[in-house]
Amino acid sequence: MSDDVQPGFVRVRLDLSYDGRDFSGWAKQARGQRTVQGEIEDALKTVTRSPETFELTVAGRTDAGVHARGQVAHVDLPGELWEEHREKLLRRLAGRLPHDVRVWSLTEAPAGFNARFSAVWRRYAYRVTDHPGGVDPLLRGHVLWHDWTLDVDAMNEAAAALVGEHDFAAYCKKREGATTIRTLQELRWERRPDGIMEATVKADAFCHNMVRSLVGALLFVGDGHRPVDWPGKVLAAGVRDSAVHVVRPHGLTLEEVGYPADDQLAARSREARNKRTLPGAAGCC
Amino acid sequence: MSDDVQPGFVRVRLDLSYDGRDFSGWAKQARGQRTVQGEIEDALKTVTRSPETFELTVAGRTDAGVHARGQVAHVDLPGELWEEHREKLLRRLAGRLPHDVRVWSLTEAPAGFNARFSAVWRRYAYRVTDHPGGVDPLLRGHVLWHDWTLDVDAMNEAAAALVGEHDFAAYCKKREGATTIRTLQELRWERRPDGIMEATVKADAFCHNMVRSLVGALLFVGDGHRPVDWPGKVLAAGVRDSAVHVVRPHGLTLEEVGYPADDQLAARSREARNKRTLPGAAGCC
Repeated sequence: MSDDVQPGFVRVRLDLSYDGRDFSGWAKQARGQRTVQGEIEDALKTVTRSPETFELTVAGRTDAGVHARGQVAHVDLPGELWEEHREKLLRRLAGRLPHDVRVWSLTEAPAGFNARFSAVWRRYAYRVTDHPGGVDPLLRGHVLWHDWTLDVDAMNEAAAALVGEHDFAAYCKKREGATTIRTLQELRWERRPDGIMEATVKADAFCHNMVRSLVGALLFVGDGHRPVDWPGKVLAAGVRDSAVHVVRPHGLTLEEVGYPADDQLAARSREARNKRTLPGAAGCC
Repeated sequence: MSDDVQPGFVRVRLDLSYDGRDFSGWAKQARGQRTVQGEIEDALKTVTRSPETFELTVAGRTDAGVHARGQVAHVDLPGELWEEHREKLLRRLAGRLPHDVRVWSLTEAPAGFNARFSAVWRRYAYRVTDHPGGVDPLLRGHVLWHDWTLDVDAMNEAAAALVGEHDFAAYCKKREGATTIRTLQELRWERRPDGIMEATVKADAFCHNMVRSLVGALLFVGDGHRPVDWPGKVLAAGVRDSAVHVVRPHGLTLEEVGYPADDQLAARSREARNKRTLPGAAGCC
């Protein structure tokens, strides 16, 4: 499989957001559960009055309950259909899609672009409050309530030991044959003026459950249940540790996906495909 | 009725927030509809194991669907009950209350404090986006989607003509005998970095529907349906104009309530009572 677009087709990049609460994640499922991919593909089919479903490829395949603000996908559309609809597609999709998923733009992708394999990094945010009263009701859909006081400095000290290229097997849901080596470029907590703590988590790609496991380990440090060096020791041990909790999905939001300059899109895509042993195993979310 | 607290009682100030979506407004109603006041009074009764319900007085009696972040209320509790529960009341309420209403603090109020009548200003925010794709799904509960491009400068020019002390009868739901003279201290739109437009609306007090009517008039200017001088002309006419739409409640949030220095609380409270002809008619929201 290469990134050559079929003759007569146009590759279109979609920038989009969703509230993950009522979705069984991004990826379409056999059993007819509600997914983001399914909703967008259905809407696209309806507004273009196409008998065919055009399949989306996404940068970050988020799990059930996880949100996205700067999600990126691509879809290959017949050139004629694209030309006919491009002007009004955005507004028509806006009218057709349910309000928990929004498409912000549809643009012709540059040559070599692949939403998933051309991406050089994914940036997530995990949001949590430790206020004894709970979470701001207007933000409760995407902020976790942790009912123990959190020490941001301790969490940042622990996080520093995790940054860099490592085998994150200890923080990944196991998948046969898939590499769990990732480069964690950033992992940092900040307390916002409104008291909410926000973790910025950025890597070339993430394996399954990785962000939520890392956050789970750091929260245990922040609330004093574990020492500052514990998350690093778990990483070094290289095996899943049952003491690491995968935190709830609703605090997690995919914020942004990074791509290289246009002339490096194709090369990056080839490189990413080769690096990850099994297709579908890496860059999952 | 004065602000003297009954002997043996303690006046407690509550700072609180709520998501107005599933409430029929603040005020308790005869017909058993779900209200913020009802939820908090019930929770307070349960956690203090009191046979009696203690009635709350609020700074801004918000309508159905309107949110609050910096809402203030007071309640008079028997001194003994307060002493017994004060330490654990916040956490117990947090555990008991539904997640769409949160109490941030309970503190003994200074002498002369009345959450409603001591307030010197109420500040609201109205949030709207004109993005053709719609509203950020994570914020859709408190941001309106206006599907016409809005000119913030034109809205601010129109708003300037409304600031100051005026008879706002044209923007108030009529109530027999109640004054509709208010001092609008601030009315200003700003486009945030994320594209959402936020109106700051601050006054000594508001009459019923006033913020939502003002915003409705300004949106018509912003999208070019009406000239910039129209909202000022409506104000000057002094009667309700059916062309002014009361915008939907979910974009509106009570953000903050201002009180004077402690030694002026009682005086301010007397003044506010006298100024408003009918009790219950003014300072409604």
